[in-house]
Amino acid sequence: MTEDAESAEKLPNWKVTLAYDGTDFSGWQVQPGERTIQGELQAALGRITGESPLPQGSGRTDAGVHALGQVASFALAAPIPAGNLLRALNRALPQAIRVVDAEGVAADFHARHSAVAKTYEYRVFREAICPPELARYVLACSWPLDLDEMDRAARLFEGEHDFLSFAATDPDLKTRGLALDEDVGAVGGRGAVRIVFSSGWERRTIEAGELLVYRVRGNGFLHHMVRNLVGTLIDVGRGRLTAEGIPQILAARARSAAGPTAPAQGLFLRSVEYGEDSF
Amino acid sequence: MTEDAESAEKLPNWKVTLAYDGTDFSGWQVQPGERTIQGELQAALGRITGESPLPQGSGRTDAGVHALGQVASFALAAPIPAGNLLRALNRALPQAIRVVDAEGVAADFHARHSAVAKTYEYRVFREAICPPELARYVLACSWPLDLDEMDRAARLFEGEHDFLSFAATDPDLKTRGLALDEDVGAVGGRGAVRIVFSSGWERRTIEAGELLVYRVRGNGFLHHMVRNLVGTLIDVGRGRLTAEGIPQILAARARSAAGPTAPAQGLFLRSVEYGEDSF
Repeated sequence: MTEDAESAEKLPNWKVTLAYDGTDFSGWQVQPGERTIQGELQAALGRITGESPLPQGSGRTDAGVHALGQVASFALAAPIPAGNLLRALNRALPQAIRVVDAEGVAADFHARHSAVAKTYEYRVFREAICPPELARYVLACSWPLDLDEMDRAARLFEGEHDFLSFAATDPDLKTRGLALDEDVGAVGGRGAVRIVFSSGWERRTIEAGELLVYRVRGNGFLHHMVRNLVGTLIDVGRGRLTAEGIPQILAARARSAAGPTAPAQGLFLRSVEYGEDSF
Repeated sequence: MTEDAESAEKLPNWKVTLAYDGTDFSGWQVQPGERTIQGELQAALGRITGESPLPQGSGRTDAGVHALGQVASFALAAPIPAGNLLRALNRALPQAIRVVDAEGVAADFHARHSAVAKTYEYRVFREAICPPELARYVLACSWPLDLDEMDRAARLFEGEHDFLSFAATDPDLKTRGLALDEDVGAVGGRGAVRIVFSSGWERRTIEAGELLVYRVRGNGFLHHMVRNLVGTLIDVGRGRLTAEGIPQILAARARSAAGPTAPAQGLFLRSVEYGEDSF
């Protein structure tokens, strides 16, 4: 091992937790000429420390998808107290991106590889007229929906399943493997099999009316998987599909068997969990 | 009276109530090359009916100011049921502008001239980190504020006062009178004298933390008046001014006597009231 590699290994490692409004960004991942969350975070780090490590996210979020607790990791040579880094990042970042937590972590912590579970939330607003303040953060959907049937169907996603029917078919990605791995957690080589720990709907009453909130927690998610689950569950709510049909949709292992992709704007990456021993 | 003028007088008159997120608009009033609420509403009417009357608002709102209940009036030749007009406008308008009510009104109803009272609300968010979902709709202000003193000061604005100390000094407007009349209700020729019916602060607890909400109801407001009241009240909360000093600030009749102009983003036009006999 060279001295350089050794000292690089010893750079203080950071874990930051981010909330963002994804509306005006082209998703998480750095892309040339596009405004992205990862790019804004890297640029803010550069302005503060003079170092511009590429922050590693727990997963990509697509354009328009929000986060309440996305996690990113990066190494910095500069010694800086965690509270100062948090405040400096929040001064340097646009208001649409907030660092809600920053902490030093062990050198082997990696926001994606170390993740053991992620929770997503999808918000559906039920009134005929959606207040402008909410419009960026919900799918407005005022037609009749059978919530009991939607929740019955949602429960059938719990457990270990092959979710290929709910994976994006990305024609522009070179290999199937890449498409599957785009938005997943730690483990490679598992195809489209994921474990969903919990999956269900709840009613939430807010000042403006009623929200239906879908929450799903799993050990990893395929690209577009949550939006495809939601699009399918809404089709169940509208009576186009039934809860009884879900096992067949899973068994088909074909995108065409499931419902449409729900719009990005209702989706929030709520939290990412890490094992006790990962940092 | 010509036949044309007579038939024009008989065009069905409309009152619509609007909610909007002002962030991405250059205020209410039509301006060449700018995206404005009035312009969007006029264009939507044109697409629906082929007629493009210029909707008259209850008053202008500045760039970045929001509305929960702005009112606009216009006449349309096309006979159209109110519910259909409401739905068609909401399909034609961007999500950031919603028509929450539409009704046919008497020919002499005018959104500005007929107004007898308006209520504004200003939202201050008190936590150190402002969630991105809220950032467009609040002033984030986590430093210590003496709410009791702010509320005492706010009460001193109630009653009939000359509010010239809280009027924008618009160097680009040709006459003083124009500057004063920009954001007011019905009556002309009253200088800077307005009646404030109520003015006070309240705490509101939301999921993300604590909001302080200033609500003011009056018979008309000068340009920037609410934002100048709020900037002054925040100076009171920070101890830079005292409630006891408010009468002197009013008496000074000079913008320099009052506090700064609070940012547009925390301000909402909440509602506009009309007399029973006005429509």
